[in-house]
Amino acid sequence: MTERIYNFSAGPAVLPEPVLEQAREDLWSLGDSGVGILEHSHRGGPFDAVIEAAEADCRSLAGVGDDHAVLFLQGGASTQFFMLPANLLPEGGTADYVNTGSWSKKAIKEAKLYGNVHVAGSSEDENFSYIPDLASLSCSDSPTYLHFTSNNTIFGTQFQSEPTPPAGAFLACDGSSDAFSRPIDLTRYGVYYAGAQKNLGPSGVTLVVIRRDLLERKERELPTMLRYATHAEQGSRYNTPPTFGIYLMGRVFRWIQDQGGLELLGKQNEEKAALLYDVLDESAFYEAAAKAGTRSLMNVTFRTPSPELDAQFVKESLAAGLSGLKGHRSVGGMRASIYNAFPRQGCQVLAEFMKDFAQRNG
Amino acid sequence: MTERIYNFSAGPAVLPEPVLEQAREDLWSLGDSGVGILEHSHRGGPFDAVIEAAEADCRSLAGVGDDHAVLFLQGGASTQFFMLPANLLPEGGTADYVNTGSWSKKAIKEAKLYGNVHVAGSSEDENFSYIPDLASLSCSDSPTYLHFTSNNTIFGTQFQSEPTPPAGAFLACDGSSDAFSRPIDLTRYGVYYAGAQKNLGPSGVTLVVIRRDLLERKERELPTMLRYATHAEQGSRYNTPPTFGIYLMGRVFRWIQDQGGLELLGKQNEEKAALLYDVLDESAFYEAAAKAGTRSLMNVTFRTPSPELDAQFVKESLAAGLSGLKGHRSVGGMRASIYNAFPRQGCQVLAEFMKDFAQRNG
Repeated sequence: MTERIYNFSAGPAVLPEPVLEQAREDLWSLGDSGVGILEHSHRGGPFDAVIEAAEADCRSLAGVGDDHAVLFLQGGASTQFFMLPANLLPEGGTADYVNTGSWSKKAIKEAKLYGNVHVAGSSEDENFSYIPDLASLSCSDSPTYLHFTSNNTIFGTQFQSEPTPPAGAFLACDGSSDAFSRPIDLTRYGVYYAGAQKNLGPSGVTLVVIRRDLLERKERELPTMLRYATHAEQGSRYNTPPTFGIYLMGRVFRWIQDQGGLELLGKQNEEKAALLYDVLDESAFYEAAAKAGTRSLMNVTFRTPSPELDAQFVKESLAAGLSGLKGHRSVGGMRASIYNAFPRQGCQVLAEFMKDFAQRNG
Repeated sequence: MTERIYNFSAGPAVLPEPVLEQAREDLWSLGDSGVGILEHSHRGGPFDAVIEAAEADCRSLAGVGDDHAVLFLQGGASTQFFMLPANLLPEGGTADYVNTGSWSKKAIKEAKLYGNVHVAGSSEDENFSYIPDLASLSCSDSPTYLHFTSNNTIFGTQFQSEPTPPAGAFLACDGSSDAFSRPIDLTRYGVYYAGAQKNLGPSGVTLVVIRRDLLERKERELPTMLRYATHAEQGSRYNTPPTFGIYLMGRVFRWIQDQGGLELLGKQNEEKAALLYDVLDESAFYEAAAKAGTRSLMNVTFRTPSPELDAQFVKESLAAGLSGLKGHRSVGGMRASIYNAFPRQGCQVLAEFMKDFAQRNG
């Protein structure tokens, strides 16, 4: 088989190799069913077992009980940007958003179609290179919810803990880029959503965990497919769901269990990121793009002294088998995305490469 | 490797084995990239090649030129049920629908959220066991479009050709269950959509072919993700698309090319269906559920003389390695779904089983 390289892609991103190996088997025949996972009816017994296991493992990892529904939807976080306010923001109501980057801005834009948006905090003044101090957030009087983007893929910043919504408001979160990468208490959230393609599986499936009492709200007439209640009532099978995506997300949840759960996985992720941040902090050559104290454990953003050296870094690292390190155009420099499944050894190899590159070009 | 059985599932459904074999390789490493197809960035060169090939093969199979956009979306036909009228039916405007079953009814229900619906023809009077005569369709004065469901999975009926919309109206079609199963001239259609999971790939990706001039219409304010124009302008990559689904759909298009294209594939599908319909027509034991002249080449629906024998048929056929033959509860009896990738040999085995079962129980 072809040798795999270190893939620092920001998403879709690297998956655990044991999960890929299992998927290759199950593509041909799921267990001994004689039918591949892609070809099983979403209403048959074998897929029942797949989706039930995925939900059970999700619940057990994140401590989610029956007060929340666990949904597997389509359309990515970009669809949740409007589904959330469409379902839950009353006409004339206000939702509070923390603006920490491109994805927050898109979420804000869609919410404005349905009600008022109050920006409770922003780091736009310094090109989103930090997370606003939680104590400094200024919420509106009685928002329906407070929304934040827990990790900002492009800028490499991450909330260190959840903001607290005002009394009566629920907490809403786009967790796409750090989902299940460290312990999380989802019972604190009204709506938590995450596109799978960074930490949880392939693109094309979105995890939505929603407090059941919110399902009863009906702020406006909506198409059947856009109502959270439709999917909750039908166990994510009102229509044909993305079966393979759900299968893979389930396998990733199981893999996280095998790693020892979110506590141990979180420690691994901290150690992986530290390998890279240590190089940045000990070097006069590199500059970390995100401010200390709000740096992401998932996306490590940094620059060399010049755009020319940045380009050379990307070119040479690719030749050395380190793929996907070019930063987003709105930040420049480099970005190493090291989600759950990214191997520690890849971080070690990159750290050595960084040191060597600095020495040769510093 | 586990031996595969004959899978008559109505969808998700059997895929071509050469496509599965290739997918198993590409899951580990797409070509010699060292990165699996699930893990490639949707904005990198390798995935560019994947989506460009999928679109090119789609266009060449269906004779679609540059007057139409080819989109790869999420959410299945159920999402198209409302996206179509949300984008294209003006406030106060009328859309005509042919009502040929459960899926038509769902499409009609969602369209009513946006404008008036006129039912131009229906077979509800006889539990959707036929397709209304095209000459008998009665359209409204100036509908925006005429919508039909080209094949009805549940009832086993299929339009033999397209209805003709009134002057000024465009033709809209849910082709989910017979997409690319016979020659089709998509230039006649304003909007053609198909969930992939029956004839074109896995669940979780929807093909939408739309006339470009329709993209300029803006009947109402919509969330960014719900506008066809968003996806057309961004080459189906406004957000992260279902990359694996697009990859697999592309491989299925290529497989269809390898079969000799839609003309030859259509003949194969006719011959496969004839193996089963011949048994039904020559037998006094079985009754075909759909009326002659409107029978589906994709879903062959039939009954034995009693519900008890139906149940016995399903049980015995499963034991014989023929899976997924139980009919939908709204029709009863049996249903053999024999989409593009279903092998001819499986139809022969089922035909023999049917004859044998009739002899033993007739």
